[in-house]
Amino acid sequence: MRPMLILPLLALTAAAPATSPKTPSEAVAAAPASAWKTIPAEDLMVLDVAGNRVVIQLAPAFTPVHAANIRAFAQSGWWNEGRSAIYRVQDNYVVQWGRNETEDPMPAGVVKLPPHEYHRRLRGLVVRPLGFADQYAPRAGFALGWPVAYDPRAGTANLTHCYGYVGVARDLAPDTGSGSELYAIIGHAPRALDRNIAVIGRVVSGMEKLSAFPRGTEALGIYQDRSQDIRIASVRMAADLPAAERPSFQYLDTQSAAFGSYLRLRANRKDDFFTRPAGGVDLCSVTIPVRATPAD
Amino acid sequence: MRPMLILPLLALTAAAPATSPKTPSEAVAAAPASAWKTIPAEDLMVLDVAGNRVVIQLAPAFTPVHAANIRAFAQSGWWNEGRSAIYRVQDNYVVQWGRNETEDPMPAGVVKLPPHEYHRRLRGLVVRPLGFADQYAPRAGFALGWPVAYDPRAGTANLTHCYGYVGVARDLAPDTGSGSELYAIIGHAPRALDRNIAVIGRVVSGMEKLSAFPRGTEALGIYQDRSQDIRIASVRMAADLPAAERPSFQYLDTQSAAFGSYLRLRANRKDDFFTRPAGGVDLCSVTIPVRATPAD
Repeated sequence: MRPMLILPLLALTAAAPATSPKTPSEAVAAAPASAWKTIPAEDLMVLDVAGNRVVIQLAPAFTPVHAANIRAFAQSGWWNEGRSAIYRVQDNYVVQWGRNETEDPMPAGVVKLPPHEYHRRLRGLVVRPLGFADQYAPRAGFALGWPVAYDPRAGTANLTHCYGYVGVARDLAPDTGSGSELYAIIGHAPRALDRNIAVIGRVVSGMEKLSAFPRGTEALGIYQDRSQDIRIASVRMAADLPAAERPSFQYLDTQSAAFGSYLRLRANRKDDFFTRPAGGVDLCSVTIPVRATPAD
Repeated sequence: MRPMLILPLLALTAAAPATSPKTPSEAVAAAPASAWKTIPAEDLMVLDVAGNRVVIQLAPAFTPVHAANIRAFAQSGWWNEGRSAIYRVQDNYVVQWGRNETEDPMPAGVVKLPPHEYHRRLRGLVVRPLGFADQYAPRAGFALGWPVAYDPRAGTANLTHCYGYVGVARDLAPDTGSGSELYAIIGHAPRALDRNIAVIGRVVSGMEKLSAFPRGTEALGIYQDRSQDIRIASVRMAADLPAAERPSFQYLDTQSAAFGSYLRLRANRKDDFFTRPAGGVDLCSVTIPVRATPAD
């Protein structure tokens, strides 16, 4: 069977660098080494579940207290050895996992009721504008390698609920969630959640495993029976792993010229397959390029 | 384990009708019977695969030649008895299935190279505007129960690549694809495909099965080995099934007052969970409400 094309949003194989890239993937392939920023090992959470490895990048520049909580949970082994599980998979919405913090006392160093880290001050961020309207905020763009929505008048900026982004499950306000239970977005970006809940990072590897677990059949996609829960073997910070086992990833600097070229081409797909460029793009369709750190 | 809330975009259980609905799901629950339109059985394609049933609504008002092709494929048994398969699942993009038409002569009545049904004339459509900007077209809104992007100046309207929407796989232009191979969107809406490819309908039931198949590991998400392909048992039109086995679905009339209320609340989520309404919404986040036709 010769499958038809339907080109991917971002080609999986690197295209040959060109003087003037014609596709988003060519723009990424043409980026110089200096345009790639290595993610600190302290910001990488390594989740091993059902034989799959999922790596999540934390965003302490936006959610510092939640990032510290999550590091404390991981470093104490709070989630390990089957004490936590994936218990909810709601189609076109979220996969959710964690451990109920009411069962046992929380580990030392965890702030039980963190502040509302739903946005941060815009001041101090250098933002590259998306260049197109956003339905959920006055402006949208990119800062520190993240997609952001922002409000110049209010002076605030927030991370957004794009595909693969990770947030903190919570009960009703004023609860903000400690970080003991987390979710990742597995469908169309539910941006209405922005500024109502803390986005703490994004999946940088293994998302295709996390998104393919069976959907739960109870309300909200909860698995019907606790025996269906998918037990988590361990959640560790990359910095705490032996050097030889430590994963390492880089993101494309959103201030780099290469990213600018990538963004421009995302909004103007025109190649052998795309014959009508849209002349625009939405924030969550501009996936931030991430790669494994090259061996050299 | 007491899971935390993270409310769904649309509650699965019907809320009690209220005089003034406060949430999108309340607005849908409050819709009178007259606001629900039954989908003709001639427009429902029933796909049985690996023990799952997936029902797809065709959109002949937008893609009449492709709809006729698809009916002809289904009625001839073209895809049945394992002659077609799901062979591609690319994360955050598409699940794709079908049968390679070059293997055998196509059934009678199939137009091998259909016209470019990538958009239709705006004239004749009554459109309810979204009310917010769209990054991919001059305007966005709803017509005949479908999300549409449109261009009043050019006089055109097109169906959009939202989650669960189904398009026709094709090779490079001028090929438009016959409809023998199809795909459904399983991630963030890849709207850049709009007007480059024919959208022929949407999944109205079983999407949560279609989206959970394992992702393919080859380029473009193709399964590595043909033995991994997921064989399709049958694809039939609902109209050709015995009455007792015939599925029936209804969509909420996008011209109804109930839909207007639903749309307004989608853009202004404010309830016990959402404390900061966005004051806006993007086209693909306004999922068109669909339900099984009530027994009465």
